[in-house]
Amino acid sequence: MTRLEGFKKLTNVDEALSIFLKTLGLKKLPATRVSLQSALGRVLAEDVIAKTDLPNFDRSAVDGYAIRAQDSFEASQFNPKAFALTESEQVRKSEAKQIWTGNPLPKGANAVIMLEYTREAHGKLDVWKPVTPGENVSKRGEDVKKGEVALKAGTRLKSHHIGLIGAIGETEVNVVKKPKVALLSTGNELIEIGHTPGFTQVIEVNRLILSNLCLELGTEPHDLGIAKDDVGKIADKIREGLKQADVVITTGGTSVGYADLVPIAVNQIGKPGVVVHGVAMRPGMPTALAILDRKPVFALSGNPVAAMVGFEVFARPVLLRLLGIENEPRPALKAKLTRKVSSEPGRRVFLRIYAFEREGEFFAKPIHVKGSGILSTMTKANGYVIIPENCEVLEEGEWVLVHLFDKLGVKSAK
Amino acid sequence: MTRLEGFKKLTNVDEALSIFLKTLGLKKLPATRVSLQSALGRVLAEDVIAKTDLPNFDRSAVDGYAIRAQDSFEASQFNPKAFALTESEQVRKSEAKQIWTGNPLPKGANAVIMLEYTREAHGKLDVWKPVTPGENVSKRGEDVKKGEVALKAGTRLKSHHIGLIGAIGETEVNVVKKPKVALLSTGNELIEIGHTPGFTQVIEVNRLILSNLCLELGTEPHDLGIAKDDVGKIADKIREGLKQADVVITTGGTSVGYADLVPIAVNQIGKPGVVVHGVAMRPGMPTALAILDRKPVFALSGNPVAAMVGFEVFARPVLLRLLGIENEPRPALKAKLTRKVSSEPGRRVFLRIYAFEREGEFFAKPIHVKGSGILSTMTKANGYVIIPENCEVLEEGEWVLVHLFDKLGVKSAK
Repeated sequence: MTRLEGFKKLTNVDEALSIFLKTLGLKKLPATRVSLQSALGRVLAEDVIAKTDLPNFDRSAVDGYAIRAQDSFEASQFNPKAFALTESEQVRKSEAKQIWTGNPLPKGANAVIMLEYTREAHGKLDVWKPVTPGENVSKRGEDVKKGEVALKAGTRLKSHHIGLIGAIGETEVNVVKKPKVALLSTGNELIEIGHTPGFTQVIEVNRLILSNLCLELGTEPHDLGIAKDDVGKIADKIREGLKQADVVITTGGTSVGYADLVPIAVNQIGKPGVVVHGVAMRPGMPTALAILDRKPVFALSGNPVAAMVGFEVFARPVLLRLLGIENEPRPALKAKLTRKVSSEPGRRVFLRIYAFEREGEFFAKPIHVKGSGILSTMTKANGYVIIPENCEVLEEGEWVLVHLFDKLGVKSAK
Repeated sequence: MTRLEGFKKLTNVDEALSIFLKTLGLKKLPATRVSLQSALGRVLAEDVIAKTDLPNFDRSAVDGYAIRAQDSFEASQFNPKAFALTESEQVRKSEAKQIWTGNPLPKGANAVIMLEYTREAHGKLDVWKPVTPGENVSKRGEDVKKGEVALKAGTRLKSHHIGLIGAIGETEVNVVKKPKVALLSTGNELIEIGHTPGFTQVIEVNRLILSNLCLELGTEPHDLGIAKDDVGKIADKIREGLKQADVVITTGGTSVGYADLVPIAVNQIGKPGVVVHGVAMRPGMPTALAILDRKPVFALSGNPVAAMVGFEVFARPVLLRLLGIENEPRPALKAKLTRKVSSEPGRRVFLRIYAFEREGEFFAKPIHVKGSGILSTMTKANGYVIIPENCEVLEEGEWVLVHLFDKLGVKSAK
């Protein structure tokens, strides 16, 4: 007979994650060495220490003339100071040497006067603004000093980080290996994309969605395909996933009804198996969190939107920890709710939002939701608001914190 | 003799971009077809029209029982309505058929009552909450209707968009070709990464930085290498870039001094050549915008930070237009400035900021800047504030709009 009572008890979201992480005891994956040309989006496995000063000589930060600062003191528009132009290696008293941004400061000089405060005439230079010693000079090591930590372990490498690593003399960098994530979907009704669904059949897109979420995070998806609603077959696929990957994610087969097959399969494979099953959240209530071979197994809802929320709330923080990242918050902004929203006390609700800017003000438009299978509610949204468990209603005009997963809208609501 | 007067006139940023775009008359690049598995980050070349309804049958949005809504009217905790359980194809008066999320609605039924408002006992089902017709049912076409625009041209594809395209029966999608961007650096002092700089030599990282900015935008960088400070050599490289790419970006050799070589080279190659030279901004003042073979040529400052700002302000909007994207604002948030900042009236200043959240409040910490060559000012920042031309000072505690280029900080300032 089928189990119809519903979950005996739903676990609070924070509690579920904290129990899971504690039981799991994750370590970040080992390092691998990549060239700077292929380092974008990778995560630093260790601190990058500068082997040299950057810049490695005192240089001019502007276009102008290298001088001794003291010779410019008291210069003014009405009383310009006159300098002799020199091309020698050394700048002496009341001499000025033309210099361009990035050029090394000549000996004797200790400052640079910008072009616009000078006039060259008859082989002489008039300067009508005083400079202080060190002014407009990038001192050796001012950017990064030799021996200093240029970038910290856990940094997700963007263009400017990669540039800095190159500038201090490196061509390669130690990054954390990409976690491999095996993806399985379960359900007799599912067919692969590109096939024409018969009546009651559904094109399976959860693996497509999750594999792209994995790519966005800098992890490596591995496709386990679709399993029929059969405990043995599901267990075989999960075993295959555990062999090949660091993390296994399944979708479907987690409800408390006839399809409660993934948790059963997981518990057949080994201990501790399912650690949490049923979370006080919407969507994503039937999420199960399990551990096998010391690896995390996420059994997410078969509904695409619920699967995405389950991934966001549970899989994303785990994958980030495998990458050695403690926290990678999505961009967030405060916006005014455009209409009243009722919530469901006792559950944490992830409200899909279209956030947009109009005349410098930010607004959050709730997307009308019916069921957690409606993918267009995600494509119409660009963020979400977390409604806490103790909240019954959010009023129109209330300020909410929107977590963005897509670009901010501009000017007018969709 | 060298030109030392500085730019005769600096062009306002908005004016510079608008003159340039108008003269350029950009069209988006043609389309190419890619599989959904390799579509992440690509941009839709045309609207995606649904060929079928999604879902393609009425289906349950929850786990529960399919019933005729009218049979549940007036049900209450104190007066539950009794239903006969059925397993037949058709649900008749006061019959209930067990149904799971995603299952097709049986004939005769027009609503689904959720598990938690029912109790099965002695072959009967008690229901203590009324449902309205259509309740908990995803109607055929509710997600996307046949013939409807599922996604608009210009959409940057993320996981949920790709999932939706798969769900409506596609396996491939028409996306805009990746713009090719040729990158050249100029300067006698430059050496390639991995080489040990002699005194006065500088490791060239602008191409490394810009190529990664191009990758982040979904465009294809093409390396032209380093050119010496020689008009002929620079012109040859730019010609090579124009042959191979849709856009050419150079760094260095744009100052008004001895190194004003890129604008000279550009104007030797053809008309209209340089359209704007010298922009009222900081950093990035010596930026030049040019057009050759109807293609945009950006001559950016040789200072890495100034080059990044020049890319952000001028190259990014052009590359987005080639991709068919009108606007792709960075995530932005309002934050409180942690200290007073003086600006430079008459110039638009791009102030590097470390934005962080502490106890639900957002703060913007200005990064202390000296010259535009200091890369660590970028790695310490995660966003920027635009200080308008007419602003002399931003006060401590003032609200500013931060445009994020990296993840938001949490809890405490760096």
